[in-house]
Amino acid sequence: MQTFHIEPTHNAPLQAALVNHINQKTKPLGALGRLETLAMQLGLIQQTEQPVLQQPTMLVFAGDHGIVEEGVSPYPQAVTAQMVLNFLNGGAAINVFARQHSFDLHVVDSGVNAVFQPHPLLIDAKLGMGTENFRHQPAMTADQCAQAITRGAQIARDAIAQGCKVLALGEMGIGNTSSASCLMSVLCGLPMHQCVGRGTGLSDKGLQHKLSVLTSALQMHHVSADEPLQALAAFGGFEIAMMVGALLAAAEARTTLLIDGFIATSALLVAAKLYPQVVDYCVFAHCSDESGHSMMLSHLNAQPLLHLSLRLGEGTGAVLAYPLLQSAVAFLNEMASFESAGVSGQIQ
Amino acid sequence: MQTFHIEPTHNAPLQAALVNHINQKTKPLGALGRLETLAMQLGLIQQTEQPVLQQPTMLVFAGDHGIVEEGVSPYPQAVTAQMVLNFLNGGAAINVFARQHSFDLHVVDSGVNAVFQPHPLLIDAKLGMGTENFRHQPAMTADQCAQAITRGAQIARDAIAQGCKVLALGEMGIGNTSSASCLMSVLCGLPMHQCVGRGTGLSDKGLQHKLSVLTSALQMHHVSADEPLQALAAFGGFEIAMMVGALLAAAEARTTLLIDGFIATSALLVAAKLYPQVVDYCVFAHCSDESGHSMMLSHLNAQPLLHLSLRLGEGTGAVLAYPLLQSAVAFLNEMASFESAGVSGQIQ
Repeated sequence: MQTFHIEPTHNAPLQAALVNHINQKTKPLGALGRLETLAMQLGLIQQTEQPVLQQPTMLVFAGDHGIVEEGVSPYPQAVTAQMVLNFLNGGAAINVFARQHSFDLHVVDSGVNAVFQPHPLLIDAKLGMGTENFRHQPAMTADQCAQAITRGAQIARDAIAQGCKVLALGEMGIGNTSSASCLMSVLCGLPMHQCVGRGTGLSDKGLQHKLSVLTSALQMHHVSADEPLQALAAFGGFEIAMMVGALLAAAEARTTLLIDGFIATSALLVAAKLYPQVVDYCVFAHCSDESGHSMMLSHLNAQPLLHLSLRLGEGTGAVLAYPLLQSAVAFLNEMASFESAGVSGQIQ
Repeated sequence: MQTFHIEPTHNAPLQAALVNHINQKTKPLGALGRLETLAMQLGLIQQTEQPVLQQPTMLVFAGDHGIVEEGVSPYPQAVTAQMVLNFLNGGAAINVFARQHSFDLHVVDSGVNAVFQPHPLLIDAKLGMGTENFRHQPAMTADQCAQAITRGAQIARDAIAQGCKVLALGEMGIGNTSSASCLMSVLCGLPMHQCVGRGTGLSDKGLQHKLSVLTSALQMHHVSADEPLQALAAFGGFEIAMMVGALLAAAEARTTLLIDGFIATSALLVAAKLYPQVVDYCVFAHCSDESGHSMMLSHLNAQPLLHLSLRLGEGTGAVLAYPLLQSAVAFLNEMASFESAGVSGQIQ
């Protein structure tokens, strides 16, 4: 796999300057709560007291999964390709929210089981017609995994070269909560039953079946928490592997990453095992209703901004949190200070 | 006090139509979580399957409080007037967030201890140079209280006549967490120590002193939970009483109300004691870090949208939640259906 050079964002003098700047604003100390820590993080990511957000970009990575043969999803595999067309036609939830917040949206065919006509929003990075069924063999080869990371990194770099300062990653892939649950179990060292959820809406019986399938798969592959790339190749999918590359390349370029739900965070688990400092660049957008996501976030010491019981994927939670980043930057750059506004401070 | 005619929003056929409309969208059932219940509420408030938001308006009510003589705030009273000028000059947090989300912002002088020059953003509704010190006598007379409600109602009606479909109320008033705590204790039937918090940042010692002052005041006034107007007159303030009128007039006009933090919610406690159906029109924007707000919200069975540890007031939390209302309306009005997008439904 290619290597990445990711700097930690830590910078004590800048942090002190940001704290001082925030504390001069006309408000009681700390009264803007999470927006204050967010403003600080954005300043540290960009290494400036006056961070700017521009051209927020949403990359939706789509891929199919051989594991769906095992009946782990209530939706047919065809939905992945159908939803890609829905994205291209502008009708999905992510399109609506991306328009609302002026995101530049691209859909990446990482490995969907369908052939698409060229489209201005579509990036063709197809690595196959879906992964293998990881109940019986690795989802992909080590070489495919490395290729996926390289392609994902290049797609992120292309967006950044176009002026993107905030990158959000979304995904679509029937069956991909199964991959994410296996990655979580291995990389967080948690038993499978704590990592499996209902995905798009499994029944109790369906959930039990999914747990049984994934437990068997986990036993078969024998990967350890110290082998993130092996885990990624074992469980897939192509879209998750490309997100790993995109995360690492964006952090390397000091770009703010807006982290979505269960699948996107599973990609970050892999990325953070490889380069722990990638987490410095991550703003955690929301806590998904998919069982397991809150524990995944705890594992990363992440405090998500929103709790809205979303469980849709596509990057929707990430885009919904974006106005809070804008608010953090806006108060930092635009609010008056006690001195400039002639407002008295505390008596004691 | 004037009477209001507030219709409950309940409408079973419309609700069923909204549920059906939402469930046809290209997403798993319920996958947009809180945005789905929000879309439903906005439809019911406007009595339509296609709600629209337009001209969101923030009214910041400002007033001074005689109780500050007792040393219940770490900031001097002069800060109320200084912050009004900061609002008029565009330098406060609420200005920044109102600009970000294109709110029409007005500042209402409900009774600040200063005389202001006319200003395009300022609405003069002054009822005095501040309330009386309620440690020793009622904050205002019953007549002043009724006047404040009438003026607040008229200010809300004026905004609605200008096209406002979403009304958010904010406030400024050194000492007003003391009024809000007393209203909460009386109207929620909770002991004072559960209702008192640090406000703009009291020390432990300051907090103990505030608790002792407010406990004495509560004993002196002898008002019961069934006497919301008496409680409002006893504890004030002018800005809270005007907010009560604004809430009721807006609900009467089927306007969506965006409820901010501890002080704004205390006004709603009064309004809801008078007209319980006002709560149907309320979207609860956030849970403040001010101790007591979460219990106040529970008392109203309210589920706030945001948890960001804010404790600034001014209406900041209300404005920060606004993009989520826009998202709820946008997905309802813009997302494709399974049929229109040619996306398959569940297998089982």
